Amino acid sequence: MNIDLSIHVDLARKILTGFLRSEITRAGYSRGVVNLSGGLDSAVTAALLVEALGAENVMALRLPYSASTSDSLEDAQQMINQFKMQSQTFEITKMVDPLFQHDSKMSNTRRGNIMARARMIILYDQTEVFRGLPIGTSNKTEILLGYTTLWGDMCCALNPLGDLYKTQVRQLARALNIPQRILEKAPSADLWTGQTDEGELGFTYEDVDRLLYLIVDQRYNREDCIQAGFSPEFLEKVTDRVRHNQFKRMMPPIAKLSNRTMGYDFLYLRDWGT
Amino acid sequence: MNIDLSIHVDLARKILTGFLRSEITRAGYSRGVVNLSGGLDSAVTAALLVEALGAENVMALRLPYSASTSDSLEDAQQMINQFKMQSQTFEITKMVDPLFQHDSKMSNTRRGNIMARARMIILYDQTEVFRGLPIGTSNKTEILLGYTTLWGDMCCALNPLGDLYKTQVRQLARALNIPQRILEKAPSADLWTGQTDEGELGFTYEDVDRLLYLIVDQRYNREDCIQAGFSPEFLEKVTDRVRHNQFKRMMPPIAKLSNRTMGYDFLYLRDWGT
Repeated sequence: MNIDLSIHVDLARKILTGFLRSEITRAGYSRGVVNLSGGLDSAVTAALLVEALGAENVMALRLPYSASTSDSLEDAQQMINQFKMQSQTFEITKMVDPLFQHDSKMSNTRRGNIMARARMIILYDQTEVFRGLPIGTSNKTEILLGYTTLWGDMCCALNPLGDLYKTQVRQLARALNIPQRILEKAPSADLWTGQTDEGELGFTYEDVDRLLYLIVDQRYNREDCIQAGFSPEFLEKVTDRVRHNQFKRMMPPIAKLSNRTMGYDFLYLRDWGT
Repeated sequence: MNIDLSIHVDLARKILTGFLRSEITRAGYSRGVVNLSGGLDSAVTAALLVEALGAENVMALRLPYSASTSDSLEDAQQMINQFKMQSQTFEITKMVDPLFQHDSKMSNTRRGNIMARARMIILYDQTEVFRGLPIGTSNKTEILLGYTTLWGDMCCALNPLGDLYKTQVRQLARALNIPQRILEKAPSADLWTGQTDEGELGFTYEDVDRLLYLIVDQRYNREDCIQAGFSPEFLEKVTDRVRHNQFKRMMPPIAKLSNRTMGYDFLYLRDWGT
């Protein structure tokens, strides 16, 4: 079955730069800060920000851990040079090593979560210095699968890419002239040596994006998906991930005791009459 | 005007311990982890957790910065002794000092946010070790006023006190036999010497809780509040805070591009047919 995830790149680009410009302005700001990992999503986010606000209003942070590959740092630098953004580099090593050293048996997952959250701390702190808003880089595939660190890389004031699947972010990246090396390398959270997203997830973005598109956007049911050629095992694996990671897509639930509770009946300012 | 914020303490206690027990169990866990600051909210949260799960299933973390008052540490220890919880102490000093030293002009607010977020990192990391859920301690007053650190103390899997105003948490605290010293001391985030909540906010919890109760729970409008004896200046100060801090009560907004977007039309698992 032919499942077409191609997007109207020019339109998406226009909508997303408009979103960034209008939401940042509406919040009383004119600048943005982004963590530039050297990967595709943050490169696309930064390029959109530069188009929306002008290069002088964009601060790109490079936040390596001492064991990060120097490739990532160089790729981020190439973005900074090409798009002429402002930039700063801070090593997170001294922040996170005291925790790593405290527990020598710490798993890669724990270390990865600590690093992602330490990067969030610096991103938010630097927004105070640069007087900009922190802009997120998570895409729709990651958010649905929960392939993010809760209160880490998902933290931001605005998320421009959260409604684009990874393979769609790649389409946008080509139009934005993201450096070829960033376009071509295997997606990786770069939290430990040799980590790749697809290796860790156990499937390719191309496959999972097509399946997620059917079940989320096209509202296919189980039978429809199997008819479309997906195996029951893959379908179950993916839907389980989406279900189990729902907690990463919502604010912490509050025990309801009163008439009017945050998260239940006090949700939006438009609900609020004063 | 008499504005009565008294709660049915026994009922609230029963609902909240039931909430903790059932939600933790439903998530497949039997234990909880809480950051015990030495203040009232985290003491009440910990006491409820012990009642819900048994003391052996509760891990209390003490996470001092080197400049924290030793009173806070001792008050937290008194809670641990009285309620017989498990406990661990980690200094956040080594984690946050590299950032503080990087910028000698760093404001107290920036330092406070970094400390609150560093404590979140340790809370979440320790849930992996103890195999429990991270339990939040924010109350309704703080959340409405935005008197919290975004992605810091507001981060948790479950929040038992988020629908109780600060003065109502105090009522519950008395019933739970929280140590007298914790009940009596001035509320403080303890992020710098001499900091008190009421000094920083510029009004008392007693006043603001009564006003928030009228505008949020009783849906009073501006005229009703002034009729009830509140000054226009105080009303405006409080409503401005509630409005301006709405961003702390919601997930980061995503630019809408597709049929079905997280935060707009993909909100709850019950919306999802698969």
